[in-house]
Amino acid sequence: MGKVLIIGCGGVASVAIQKCCQNSEVFEEICIASRTVSKCDALKEQLEGKTKTKITTAQVDADNVDELIALIEKVKPDLVLNLALPYQDLTIMDACLATKVHYVDTANYEPEDTAKFEYKWQWAYRERFEKAGITALLGSGFDPGVTSVFSAYALKHYFDEINYIDILDCNGGDHGYPFATNFNPEINIREVAANGSYWEDGHWVETKPMEIKRVYDFPQVGEKDMYLLHHEEIESLALNIPGIKRIRFFMTFGQSYLTHLKCLENVGMTSIEPIMYEGKEIVPLQFLKAVLPDPASLGPRTVGKTNIGCIFVGKKDGKEKKLYIYNVCDHQECYKEVGSQAVSYTTGVPAMIGAMMILNGTWNKAGVYNIEEFDPDPFMEELNKWGLPWIIDENPTLID
Amino acid sequence: MGKVLIIGCGGVASVAIQKCCQNSEVFEEICIASRTVSKCDALKEQLEGKTKTKITTAQVDADNVDELIALIEKVKPDLVLNLALPYQDLTIMDACLATKVHYVDTANYEPEDTAKFEYKWQWAYRERFEKAGITALLGSGFDPGVTSVFSAYALKHYFDEINYIDILDCNGGDHGYPFATNFNPEINIREVAANGSYWEDGHWVETKPMEIKRVYDFPQVGEKDMYLLHHEEIESLALNIPGIKRIRFFMTFGQSYLTHLKCLENVGMTSIEPIMYEGKEIVPLQFLKAVLPDPASLGPRTVGKTNIGCIFVGKKDGKEKKLYIYNVCDHQECYKEVGSQAVSYTTGVPAMIGAMMILNGTWNKAGVYNIEEFDPDPFMEELNKWGLPWIIDENPTLID
Repeated sequence: MGKVLIIGCGGVASVAIQKCCQNSEVFEEICIASRTVSKCDALKEQLEGKTKTKITTAQVDADNVDELIALIEKVKPDLVLNLALPYQDLTIMDACLATKVHYVDTANYEPEDTAKFEYKWQWAYRERFEKAGITALLGSGFDPGVTSVFSAYALKHYFDEINYIDILDCNGGDHGYPFATNFNPEINIREVAANGSYWEDGHWVETKPMEIKRVYDFPQVGEKDMYLLHHEEIESLALNIPGIKRIRFFMTFGQSYLTHLKCLENVGMTSIEPIMYEGKEIVPLQFLKAVLPDPASLGPRTVGKTNIGCIFVGKKDGKEKKLYIYNVCDHQECYKEVGSQAVSYTTGVPAMIGAMMILNGTWNKAGVYNIEEFDPDPFMEELNKWGLPWIIDENPTLID
Repeated sequence: MGKVLIIGCGGVASVAIQKCCQNSEVFEEICIASRTVSKCDALKEQLEGKTKTKITTAQVDADNVDELIALIEKVKPDLVLNLALPYQDLTIMDACLATKVHYVDTANYEPEDTAKFEYKWQWAYRERFEKAGITALLGSGFDPGVTSVFSAYALKHYFDEINYIDILDCNGGDHGYPFATNFNPEINIREVAANGSYWEDGHWVETKPMEIKRVYDFPQVGEKDMYLLHHEEIESLALNIPGIKRIRFFMTFGQSYLTHLKCLENVGMTSIEPIMYEGKEIVPLQFLKAVLPDPASLGPRTVGKTNIGCIFVGKKDGKEKKLYIYNVCDHQECYKEVGSQAVSYTTGVPAMIGAMMILNGTWNKAGVYNIEEFDPDPFMEELNKWGLPWIIDENPTLID
């Protein structure tokens, strides 16, 4: 059906690429491009012979718009799937505009020097994408991504209006280490150290870091502590779900994980201020990363499941209604299939599906859109096919 | 009265030297020698003009017997006070033997490559010191040191026989940091990670690290958690206190301190195995030391008190008797007096007193002796004079 240029070759990209290769009718050809072309070549070598998708690779600096344009002009893809760093969303969008090629990503742009997740920079491209006749699909991972599709689906089929959304991200996985982080520990640590926030009655309410804690008994995982965090999909859902009164995002963290993180912070090991050590500047957090287990090494040893979903409360036919839509994903099953555990898997699969929706014309409108602005039904159908089946519970326990 | 060569110029030495200078009638002249002569010079400069004690300084490598002999022959001291590292006890004893000069230290020899505190290496010098007509006084700090003098004093004045001794070392100080160590963190960490042991019915009983925990309400400090550790004075007291059935040593550690230490251990930050970091071998524990507050910086900010002492249970006139002898020392008072907090103060003062006992001939017998083998009364009297007054409680709460 089409050709996709995939930028990035990390954990999530590896899953998305393998999923594209399982879906060769849609992804007839892909080009994998990243700063380190050897990583792309290694993945190509691993996949070739097992897929009908034609794979090429390329070297590209995603911070450089001219390089990106040159690459797009050479590869001539129908769509660019951005699985690089969030810092690079805008340069890649610029290159797509210049070459009139569709754009899909999984995480919203953030400037490298602030820790602010906001859509304003990407929404500023709306008119230009519309005029160019191309689509930018923002946030096609799991959260943001599937959680927003769940919201659109709930609204379409189960509610006249949704008033409350709680997005719950539970990782019940156990890697057997006293402490390790699933992805870049710098991002983990920043997430936990940042203020939380939620949307209520038309404005943001800010909380202290980890101030709001709840315990929830997750289906197929069990009881876990979870904490309210800021998360980017809240911003767009607040605009796109009419009648909404409150949206919150909760993520599970184990007590041991938090204790280790706090201790490391207390002694200064998470600091990004360099210290002098034997005549050389060393950033404590960078040294800590070198001491901790490599996140990539966790895959084979992580057991247990993730459970990510949304609890909705609203009205249907004048009566209050509640609904819980969630996916459960098994770390070991994911690892067997694609060599990555569920955290990468649950983001990589929706990235492939989002790209497919645009590529095959199922979702077809010019401009910049968050994922809940499209018809959720075909996406929901593909989730069941590609490894992320969802469950609907019409009588969930609510969170106070 | 005499001249003393003091080897070492760290925290404890600084206190002992200042105390010698307060006691110029006994310490007419001192020579401060260490590897880094600039530290000795700085201390000399700070003290000169405020004391009648004549101060000189010298550079010496305490691992080198020939250098030590040459220095002793040049300085011609009546006594060498060893406040260097425990690794250097034997080389300094060798030099004292060769020059026939009395020897005093505060901690027993340990080989650098094992973590074994044992007296056997130093006791092997007994006959040679006796023949040379000089005295080696071992362990004249607080614990070992004052705790052993307390034991000898209790036996002499209060008991016919002592059956149980519990040595309690409580640091109720607060430096205001979430985590910091009072002295070299490497030694702190090794202490907590090592197996514990106590003496019972004629043999050592080994425990797992921190296996035995008790809570005790320390006079003037309050209730603290304390843990059974191995400690060197148990070995000599077991031989020198007739009728002894059990000797234990407990040290207080706060829960937060232990949690931080455990987390740092869990993530590998206390490891002494180097890792490769940017092409260079770095030992995680060494890097951690560079990140933690400098122990020397804790003095001005530490508030609260130490309480170190011994609880004795035994018999007097056929009846069971109990007794608690302890000293309470205030961190801020110590800092005001000598610029060090109580942990250094409580070791430095007894070092000066031990040296004085030998120098003025109060304790006068040739050979190698642990401190409890001398008459405790004059030492106990000096403790009251020089800043470590003791309290006797004849009805203490016992530890089960």
